[in-house]
This record gives sequence, structure tokens and C-alpha cells, in this order.
Amino acid sequence: MSLQFPDTPEFTGLYKPSRVEASIVDLEVEGTIPEAINGTFYQVAPDPQYPPMLGNDIFFNGDGIVSAFRFTGGKVSLKRRYVETERLKAQRREHRSLNGVYRNVYTNDPLAASNNTTANTTVITHNGILLSMKEDSLPWALNPDTLETIGEWDFNGQIKSATFTAHPKRDPDNDALLCFAYEAKGDATPDIAYFEISDTGELTREIWFQAPYAAMIHDFAVTQNYVIFPIIPLTADLERMRKGGQHFQWQPDLPQLFGVLPRNGSAQDIRWFYGPVNGFQGHTLNAYEEGNKIFVDMPVTNGNVFYFFPQADGAVPPPESLKAALMRWTFDLDAEDHDVVPQLLTATPFPCEFPRCDERYNGKPYRYGFTLAYDPQLPFDSATLGALPFQFFNQLARIDVVTGKSEMWYPGDAQCFQEPAFIPRSKDAPEGDGWVVCVMNDLRAHTSELLIMDTAHWVQGPLARVKIPFRLRMSLHGNWSGD
Amino acid sequence: MSLQFPDTPEFTGLYKPSRVEASIVDLEVEGTIPEAINGTFYQVAPDPQYPPMLGNDIFFNGDGIVSAFRFTGGKVSLKRRYVETERLKAQRREHRSLNGVYRNVYTNDPLAASNNTTANTTVITHNGILLSMKEDSLPWALNPDTLETIGEWDFNGQIKSATFTAHPKRDPDNDALLCFAYEAKGDATPDIAYFEISDTGELTREIWFQAPYAAMIHDFAVTQNYVIFPIIPLTADLERMRKGGQHFQWQPDLPQLFGVLPRNGSAQDIRWFYGPVNGFQGHTLNAYEEGNKIFVDMPVTNGNVFYFFPQADGAVPPPESLKAALMRWTFDLDAEDHDVVPQLLTATPFPCEFPRCDERYNGKPYRYGFTLAYDPQLPFDSATLGALPFQFFNQLARIDVVTGKSEMWYPGDAQCFQEPAFIPRSKDAPEGDGWVVCVMNDLRAHTSELLIMDTAHWVQGPLARVKIPFRLRMSLHGNWSGD
Repeated sequence: MSLQFPDTPEFTGLYKPSRVEASIVDLEVEGTIPEAINGTFYQVAPDPQYPPMLGNDIFFNGDGIVSAFRFTGGKVSLKRRYVETERLKAQRREHRSLNGVYRNVYTNDPLAASNNTTANTTVITHNGILLSMKEDSLPWALNPDTLETIGEWDFNGQIKSATFTAHPKRDPDNDALLCFAYEAKGDATPDIAYFEISDTGELTREIWFQAPYAAMIHDFAVTQNYVIFPIIPLTADLERMRKGGQHFQWQPDLPQLFGVLPRNGSAQDIRWFYGPVNGFQGHTLNAYEEGNKIFVDMPVTNGNVFYFFPQADGAVPPPESLKAALMRWTFDLDAEDHDVVPQLLTATPFPCEFPRCDERYNGKPYRYGFTLAYDPQLPFDSATLGALPFQFFNQLARIDVVTGKSEMWYPGDAQCFQEPAFIPRSKDAPEGDGWVVCVMNDLRAHTSELLIMDTAHWVQGPLARVKIPFRLRMSLHGNWSGD
Repeated sequence: MSLQFPDTPEFTGLYKPSRVEASIVDLEVEGTIPEAINGTFYQVAPDPQYPPMLGNDIFFNGDGIVSAFRFTGGKVSLKRRYVETERLKAQRREHRSLNGVYRNVYTNDPLAASNNTTANTTVITHNGILLSMKEDSLPWALNPDTLETIGEWDFNGQIKSATFTAHPKRDPDNDALLCFAYEAKGDATPDIAYFEISDTGELTREIWFQAPYAAMIHDFAVTQNYVIFPIIPLTADLERMRKGGQHFQWQPDLPQLFGVLPRNGSAQDIRWFYGPVNGFQGHTLNAYEEGNKIFVDMPVTNGNVFYFFPQADGAVPPPESLKAALMRWTFDLDAEDHDVVPQLLTATPFPCEFPRCDERYNGKPYRYGFTLAYDPQLPFDSATLGALPFQFFNQLARIDVVTGKSEMWYPGDAQCFQEPAFIPRSKDAPEGDGWVVCVMNDLRAHTSELLIMDTAHWVQGPLARVKIPFRLRMSLHGNWSGD
């Protein structure tokens, strides 16, 4: 029997499936890895076990495969395993894909698992386990050393929502996991739940409320006293799903909506703020409060980034028409006007995404960020590589949000980056002082490397390049877990 | 810390270390794999865990890593694991290579394991276990399903030799393993032992004898009543080893020596035959007897193939001066003259190696062979790829030793093959009727594929190409194990 992936942008180049479950002891390293780096960089990629049932598919529908780069005394080893979801196991049993349209169970094969998640969006350690999360279901738990799958994880029965975010934040003061769920009562419900789960696994806060309509809330922001839910103009509709349509549809007339909730509040305390229409709020860099003002920093794009979720008439903006920039939203709890317009956060507007802060400053006044960026003026070998793939970033940036200045590093005309993570130089190192780890793909050589950047010498490029002996498909998110 | 392999022919191109321990469920396949193929193709490659202690090293000194391609109903899955030898474990503990000159324990680091083997030369199933073998020690046993290492294997205490061949033959009449050991009483001893071990693991025959001198006996040949030991003019010398020299040294004045032993005989029954000097007997294709004549078919080269074991003055022949051909040696047990000269077995002399027969005909009159071959007239992209690597074969050949005719398949100007294995179409299929599996490396694209050839349609090329998502380093040997 033949088994081949489609020859489409979704399954070639940066998106060519890799599917390798691997162990490599002491990866090859060019340069020097500081011996002080001890811990594990976990990340997860959608990597389809089988070619798509419907002939093509979107990146987000791939099965979750977790990579663990373990650092000890200047050496790095790699383990990589699929999350053994019910969905993966059903596919392997039938030797084919059983799942249809992304996040639409009505389009699945009758033999598909009832749990539709692929657990492919982020991985984070909490209370001795590794959680692999996708926002369409509860997390899946893994053994953080072996990456063996433990199973679906409801925090010992404490979490009753149908879904759970893939963007929890860690409270730096007590290591609690701050989390939420949207479509929390099932597909296309406007219900949202907010949870705080202590470092020892106790559910300490739970607030349920409703948004004006059901829509995507991919990431969120936290401050010391508030949580902020950016509701993207991508709405969910059960009727459309029942007819085989997409879970999400872009609504160009809807605003970028924000719910602001006091962490010690209840449903009636939610306040809504309205941004410009036809804008896409991306991942949050960080947020903090000053008096009754809340600042949320994140890339914002002037239109629908997700070409695979078009608007009702099928229209999607041409990629070159999209302009992103790192912006600051200010929510003034004393203001009567609930319209908000974001302000440019950096001196130069540049398309960027996957921003990360020094997470010891989560929710607090902060200064530094690390993000992927794209400068279209820099060379790209389109003669060999053709069109830019989705989520192509040719620069790694260190941002000072106080001065608005950025330092950039550009590796060459065929390289692009995956989401970085920050590692402090020591527990009490100054903010942003340490290292950034980041996977880089070479689209021409079909290779991947893990880079280690020193934040104090950014423009000099990586201290060390860790060679990965197979190509890593583009990933989504991950986190550093220090020893 | 940096960890980099040398930029030498021994560690680049076809010989670039891969080191990936992997599991891949249902590999990608272009073409169609016959559903009737059920079983596992095991092969083993030397793949160094660490860069060489002495700055460079020979291919044969790499740590053994076993690949298991498991076929079921038209699907192929891959598992790949290192043999966890004492040597590998000691290296991993110290995070560096501890071993010096190939097969010279006097050059090892004091922290190196006392067992010097890498178990990297062949893998074969026997009596419910998988044996990974290298001729410098006893075999290592693995679980044939998980590839987990069980440990050094002395066949339940029955085998007392210091070494053991990496070229056992299976007796097709009773599935006994026919084996031998050279340097069987330790480094540079001229002692040889012959063993027969039943399919249930009983040692049923054991014959010890001495060669005129200690030298390499890499492969051997068996017939229904005899075993034939091709003693290559590569001698071993303990004094040279103690001084840090190579285990083997080419002796251009020594003949290609053959010991012929009756399987039911004893030490005094050994008879010696003398071939031309300065010739290299390669791997055996097959052998059989007719009356008192024994025929042994194998590639023979006009000089030292192993450039890394030079003669005493350091000389090695330029690769382009070496000419190999598939030859037949005839040992006439009634003849008084013990000088033998091999005769060309195929209509066209072509350099070839890694020959395999339909092993249901091991030791019996037979007709078909499958081998790697090299035709220097065919295009090679030297502009991109530079010089030919060691063991480069650009053709896959099906040989008829009765007519001397060969059918060849040539994949292109950047591809080369690893050792094939034959799979009969059914248990009672005619000789040579079935499939041949073989790893092919693409030196330009840095990819590897497992090919499935139909022996009935050889020149049409593979029925199926199984895509391996990482490059496989050149391997040595392997075997098919049917369900």
C-alpha cells in the first residue's frame, strides 16, 4: 500500500511531516553550551501520523509530538515522542487518518476516537507532570522524563470544563498555573471559565462567565489582579459545523474584543473593551497594571492571519497585505469609553509573532521580550525555495519595551525560526539576562538546529548550534523547565 | 561544550553519523508494498556515539545501531536502537569516546569497558532472540521486538571462544546456525573454532584447529558436508598492537588462503588451499559440493580493499586501481595440487560486493544471487558530491550463476546501495522468486529509502520506495526474518 502526504504547502517545506519518535544522546554541538544551563526545553509540534482523510488539511490538525531537549553540564540530549491520544491510537489501529475538518467532529470517520484532541499546541511542566495541551479539550499528561503518555488530565477531577487553554501562564509569585477555557460547555458555546491551580495541584479559583458570542480565545494575559481575554474575530457556529464547514469563520465586521476580569471576582465583574474591526490579536508578550490601568502587549495584525478560516464569502487577505506589529493595549478601568486602540510598542514596526518574556516577570512591570520577526527587505532564496511558507520569520529579536529599541539576528536567506524560550542566567539574575533557546529550520538544507543565544550578546548570534539529525516540522509552543 | 565529528571522508557524506534511535509507525511509501510480505528486515550499522578519541577513526569502529523494518499487510514500521554494549555504556557515562585504534585495546582510555566490541556487523534472529554480532567478541542478544539489549550472549555457557563470527550461516535443512570464531583464543591467536548450534540453541558440533598464522577471516562458506574458511592476507600481530599499531596489516606476499574442513571432522582433517597473492577474498555468495569438488562463489579483488589497514611500508592501492569481480573457487579434494585460481562467474566482470543468495539454498547447488555492483561508466555527480565514498555501489544486480547473465538496476547519479536481503514469495516459491529489500542512500538529497524490488521484474526498479525521514549511515549487514 502507498502512504504519501499531499504535495501542498501544508505538507512540504517547513511543513513536511517528520513523524520521528527519537532518542539521541548528546547531540552534536557547534560552539559551546554554557554548563550552567540545566533543565529541559520542551516543545510540541503538530505532526500528522497519517495523510489527511480529506486530501489536504491545516497545520493545526496534526498529531502532537513532543520534543524534550535536556541540558546537563554543557551537553544536550533529545527525546521525542507522540502524545498517545485516543485519536492517535485509533488512527494507528486503522492505519489511516480518521479525522476530517479541523475541530469539527461531525466530519470524522465513525471509527475516529470520540476525543478529538491532538494535544499539539504547548507543553508545560506542572506539579511533577508534563501537560500537553490543545484548546479543544482537557490537557494530556506525560511523564516529563520518558515522555510516556499518562492520559487525559482533569487535575484529579477538579476541572469540569469541556475544553482548556493551551496558553496557561505561571504566576511567578507562587508557581500557580493560571488557565482558562473557552467553548467551555462544548462546541460553539460562548461560555468561558477561569481557573487558578496551585503548584501542588489544588484548584484555588474558578470563575465562569459568558462572552457576547462564541469565538476563538487562543492566548490570554494576566496581571497581578486581573486576567484579560482577547476574543479574536473568528466565531464558532454549530450549524456550520454540522454542515461540514469550518469550526471558525473570520468576521471582518467584529471588533477585537477584550474581556477584563478581576482574578478575585465573579461573572458579573467582567468588563468588555472594543478594539478596531478586522484586526487579529496574536499571542501575548506580557501584561501588567498601574493603578486602574491595565497594559497588554501583543502583536496585532490588520486582518485575518489564518487563511484556512476564511470569512463567509470565502475571502482571505493576500499574505503580503497583512501587516503585524508589536502593540500595547491600554484598558482604563476608570474610563467610560470602552473603545480601545492599540499603540505601537517598538520604535520600528515589524511583523512579529511568538513573543516571550522573562516569565519571572509574568503579569508585572517588565522591560524585555524575545520574539520571532520578519523583515521582507532581507534576502530570501525564493529561486530555490519558492513562496514563503506560513509563519515564516527570518529574524530573532530582543526587544526593550521601555526604549522601544530592538536587537535583531538574521541567520541567512533560507533559515527561519520556531518559538523561542527564555532561560534566566541564574535564579536571581536581572530581568532578561540569560539565554534564549530556539529551533531554527534551514529550508534549503532540510535540516534543523537548536540555537542557544546569549541575551547579553544578541547581535553576535548563537553561542551554540545544536544539530538535530532529522528535520523538525514547524512547531507551535513550548516552555523551559529548569532543574 | 562542543561535540563535532571530523570533516573527513570517514565522517561525511555516506559516512556522516546519524545516531538516531527512532520509532516510526507506518513509514511513508511511494508505490505499493505487497501485502504478502510479513516479517522484519533487520540490519546494523556502525554509528559512533561520540567523535573519535584519536581525531579520526575507521568506519568499522562505530557503535552498533540496529534498524528493524517490520512489514505487515502492506505497511512498514521502523524501530532503531543502539546495542547497549559495555563500551557504549562506558562512553555515555563519560560523555566521550574512550576507544582508540580499531580492535586494539592497548590504545583505549583506562575508563573504557574491558569488552571492546561494538556489535556492529550483522543481526540475525535465532531461537527467539536477535543476535547483534561483530567478529571481535561473542554476540550481543537483543529483544527482537523492542530491540532492548539483553546482554553478551555465550549461548547459555556453551560457547567458550574469545570471539565469534559476524557471518553465521543458517542451515536450510534444520535451521541450525553454522558459526565460527577466529583469533578464538584471544587477540592475534591463530586458533579457529567451528560451531553448529541447533534451532533450539544446543551446541551440536565444535571443532578447534589452527591456521598457519593469525589473519582476518571475515566471512566463510558452508556446503552440506564442508565448511570453508577464506583467510584474507590481513594478518594480526600482538607486538604491533602493543605499540599502538593497527590490529591488521596487509601482506602482499601472502596467498589468499582457504581452510576446508569436513563438518563431521576434527582438527587433523583441515586441508589448506592456496590462491594468488595480493588478492582480497570478499563476502561469500554461496557454496556447494559435487562429489569431491567444492565450489565457493564470492567477489575477489586484486589487492587490499581496506585502505585503513595498509601494508608494512604504509602503502595502500589507489581505489581506482582495484578491480573486483564475482569469482568461483573450486577446491578439488582429490587433487594433489593445492594451488587454486578463481574463475569468473559472470559474463561481464563488474566490481561487486555484499552478495546474497536465496538462503533456502545455502550450501546447495543454486542459481541466483543478488548483489551491489559498481559501474564506473554510469554517471556520478562528482561536481556536487566530490570523490566516491568507500563502498560506493551504484547498481543493484540480480545474477544468474548458471548463464552468467546479470540484470542491473541503476537509480541515478547520486544514489548508492546498502546490502540487500532476499525474501521468498512464499515458503515453497521457486529459487530466487520473491523480493529483495535494500536501503538506498541519496548522497545529494541526504535522504535514505528502503527499496522493495520484485525479482521477477528486476530492471523495472522498485515496486515500492519506503521513505526514511532521516539519513541512514552506511550499514554493514542484516537479515530477513519472516513471520
